Amino acid sequence: MFIANAWYVAAWSHEVAPDALFSRVITGVPVLLYRKDDGSTVALEDRCCHRGAPLSVGRREGDCVRCMYHGLKFDSAGACVEAPSQQRIPPRAKVKSYPTVERHRWIWIWMGDPALANPDAIPDTHWLDDPAWSSLPGYIHYHVNYLLICDNLLDFSHLPFVHPTTLGGSEDYANVQPKVERIENGVRITRWVMGTDAPPFAAAVKQWPGKVDRWNIYDFTLPAILRMDSGMAPAGTGAREGTRVDAAEFRGCQALTPETENSTHYFFGHPHNFAIDQPDITRSIHQSVVDAFDEDREIITAQQKNLALDPDFEMSPFGIDSALSQFRWAVKERLENERHARQESVQEALHDQG
Amino acid sequence: MFIANAWYVAAWSHEVAPDALFSRVITGVPVLLYRKDDGSTVALEDRCCHRGAPLSVGRREGDCVRCMYHGLKFDSAGACVEAPSQQRIPPRAKVKSYPTVERHRWIWIWMGDPALANPDAIPDTHWLDDPAWSSLPGYIHYHVNYLLICDNLLDFSHLPFVHPTTLGGSEDYANVQPKVERIENGVRITRWVMGTDAPPFAAAVKQWPGKVDRWNIYDFTLPAILRMDSGMAPAGTGAREGTRVDAAEFRGCQALTPETENSTHYFFGHPHNFAIDQPDITRSIHQSVVDAFDEDREIITAQQKNLALDPDFEMSPFGIDSALSQFRWAVKERLENERHARQESVQEALHDQG
Amino acid sequence: MFIANAWYVAAWSHEVAPDALFSRVITGVPVLLYRKDDGSTVALEDRCCHRGAPLSVGRREGDCVRCMYHGLKFDSAGACVEAPSQQRIPPRAKVKSYPTVERHRWIWIWMGDPALANPDAIPDTHWLDDPAWSSLPGYIHYHVNYLLICDNLLDFSHLPFVHPTTLGGSEDYANVQPKVERIENGVRITRWVMGTDAPPFAAAVKQWPGKVDRWNIYDFTLPAILRMDSGMAPAGTGAREGTRVDAAEFRGCQALTPETENSTHYFFGHPHNFAIDQPDITRSIHQSVVDAFDEDREIITAQQKNLALDPDFEMSPFGIDSALSQFRWAVKERLENERHARQESVQEALHDQG
Repeated sequence: MFIANAWYVAAWSHEVAPDALFSRVITGVPVLLYRKDDGSTVALEDRCCHRGAPLSVGRREGDCVRCMYHGLKFDSAGACVEAPSQQRIPPRAKVKSYPTVERHRWIWIWMGDPALANPDAIPDTHWLDDPAWSSLPGYIHYHVNYLLICDNLLDFSHLPFVHPTTLGGSEDYANVQPKVERIENGVRITRWVMGTDAPPFAAAVKQWPGKVDRWNIYDFTLPAILRMDSGMAPAGTGAREGTRVDAAEFRGCQALTPETENSTHYFFGHPHNFAIDQPDITRSIHQSVVDAFDEDREIITAQQKNLALDPDFEMSPFGIDSALSQFRWAVKERLENERHARQESVQEALHDQG
Repeated sequence: MFIANAWYVAAWSHEVAPDALFSRVITGVPVLLYRKDDGSTVALEDRCCHRGAPLSVGRREGDCVRCMYHGLKFDSAGACVEAPSQQRIPPRAKVKSYPTVERHRWIWIWMGDPALANPDAIPDTHWLDDPAWSSLPGYIHYHVNYLLICDNLLDFSHLPFVHPTTLGGSEDYANVQPKVERIENGVRITRWVMGTDAPPFAAAVKQWPGKVDRWNIYDFTLPAILRMDSGMAPAGTGAREGTRVDAAEFRGCQALTPETENSTHYFFGHPHNFAIDQPDITRSIHQSVVDAFDEDREIITAQQKNLALDPDFEMSPFGIDSALSQFRWAVKERLENERHARQESVQEALHDQG
Repeated sequence: MFIANAWYVAAWSHEVAPDALFSRVITGVPVLLYRKDDGSTVALEDRCCHRGAPLSVGRREGDCVRCMYHGLKFDSAGACVEAPSQQRIPPRAKVKSYPTVERHRWIWIWMGDPALANPDAIPDTHWLDDPAWSSLPGYIHYHVNYLLICDNLLDFSHLPFVHPTTLGGSEDYANVQPKVERIENGVRITRWVMGTDAPPFAAAVKQWPGKVDRWNIYDFTLPAILRMDSGMAPAGTGAREGTRVDAAEFRGCQALTPETENSTHYFFGHPHNFAIDQPDITRSIHQSVVDAFDEDREIITAQQKNLALDPDFEMSPFGIDSALSQFRWAVKERLENERHARQESVQEALHDQG
């Protein structure tokens, strides 16, 4: 069961090439993504209403797509506009279409009620294509439920253990209890470590005179979007008070999109605002993040395998779980609200008929 | 759930070599096929009644087969006739045997009540070994339910879309509504396309002066047997009226045998009655069919994958579905009749005891 | 469902190296095995109580192990003794620990109630490290339920059929009805074949003047431990009466440990007391056993595949099944006793509270 009424990231802009048909399963639904001749994005159910064949192995015809099983043709709103040897197309012959918004190199999709899809609710990730920042696009496919990855991203005490040679740094980092606040649709986590060592990935791209003050401030919001202000500055230069002198700043943007109950799409970029004219540094930062996420994937996949052995296993709460407990609660609450709303709308419909 | 009382194709004759033990799962049942010394075919349940080991990894001993786990020996009727260190064999010690008929290079098997197995009900496929016709034996293993392949074979409007470069031909072919008739145990489909282009596979093996009149007339009968009179003749030479002058004629024979709920054996041959002394042409025709069936398998496997994502998906009926809807209805009716007959026989048995 | 209160073999001694973390799933539970600095063995649940990550991808710290997901540290009794950024560890924060005993190169583990774990109940397998006997350690991983392998080991009538060129020998061996006795926790099987041929594996390592008298006497006890006195002596030299002259003697030790419902660990050694200073002969004997067990695995895996096709298949009992029927009955009885004991202890607990 997934949250329906929310913006998910469906793809990086470059994944949907001008003339191509791109297919991806999102929250259990096969979705066809393509661009109209004007470049705007279209998302249709990738399952012909006739016999269920995928439209994505079909053929583009102008702004339409033709199913290459029996030749039905659909327009960009999902309506069947042509069927072989048949003049009248049944009005119910259509595939679902989904609202999309392309913004800052991400194509967002709304899998729920289209009437509720408000583009203003899309979180700001402008650093991904702001010329003052530099980053590379990242994508990882995961064979685990997306909530296990949410857990991971909501508890950075794992950094020195899972990522000792990449993101991690010294273990004092894990010993700092972060501040956790509920915000609309999620949680905000703030962690400052004063006078610590620069982590390996940062030491590799910038000279540090000595200890640094390091921060991670991020919002993690429904359905599963992380936006992070992180970085470090030479110790004692007042970063915590708001002065960022000679700092290395990052604006991590990450999005988890459930593929199925047991698999997840993971989109990420890690924009930085220093040395942006040095592609080697951008590549090095990106690679550090990729290496670290591979480490995460290893431990999370092992965790999922362990959990699968015993469906009755109960996790023990620890102090470090505050943020992830709150987020899991927010997910649960939203799912219940959506279930409730669906029941109400069924009852209204019955009442209208009665 | 599969139809039990029907003749299925179990194998091509050459698959069951004189001294070998051949194993194939048919309608969910492991079946051992072999030949007695007189060459006649035997089909036994390929599962020793003792501990369930497959007899097919056992040993031929005359017309008997010995299980090589604990040494039980079965005769060609499935009765256990020898067990190590035991004089008296329990009379219940036997494996099921299934009626078989070998005819025109196909070995037919009856998985249901042997008392109902009437060889006269086997459809005529004599073109497969008639010296006036030439063909090669084809077999494809499919990872989909057999009904999805039936659907495919019952709607040739897919030809120009799935097979544009092989069987397909021009799209006017798809726009001709075929005639669909109910016949005993199935449907007959008749499609004539007058003054069209010869399809690629036919153009490759024969010179055509210009347009052709093309026909496909086939019976598709339970459990899933297709016999087709197809071909083409120079346009306007009266083929539709019964005169086949300078025609290329084919008598396609195809049989689908369910392996499990999610996999299928597909046997086919495509006999032709011209250039039968030119093996290159026979090979070329056969290869065209194989290439086309590979195209079918690709789209049907994609379709099955899509359907598996949502068990509640409902297909939308179109005009082109007339034949397949009728056939699916015939399958359903037959399954219900068989269920009903089983219940009646249980009640009779209870009554006889009472 | 597996027997809980019993000693299972968890590993060969050499599998758990001094500094390593060794992981193995036993009766469905992921288990971490390692050695303390004093060399003694530790077995902990390989699943951190926090979020379920495997401790075996963690880090040894003295006699403790640290989970490398979030840094929780556990002592060798399974108690959490350290958690990042947290002074007070919740007393419930622990992973299960399991009693282990290392004896004669096998590490035994007790998966049930630790209070019931009595090392005196471990069967004697001293031949595995007795200097008067020689053997090599064997391990096979099986993708079948352990009871199918028990069946195999409890009915040696399969020897001439499954192992004609290795352990088997002539078919008269299968025709000798063994003596089967119930003993505590299992069955004892005694089979003498007088004046038969030496089996291939024995003929390969020793010269025999002619026929031999051959014996297999073994106890097969819960949970699934086989200890066998087997061998052969020149025919008529009185072996059956207790005189073992010029004999080749073996003391096979075998242990089946369920991994999951559908997979099994198989530990075995085949000590012999002749030519013990000739490693080539030990290797040859070991290889014969391995080859034979590969033959077993082939037929048992085929059997399991066949059984999976029809969950309703009922095995037919034969005379040769006496031992395995008795053993399966002993397993069933033990499982029922354990279920009963669990229910009683729940009721006692409720009564104590009431």
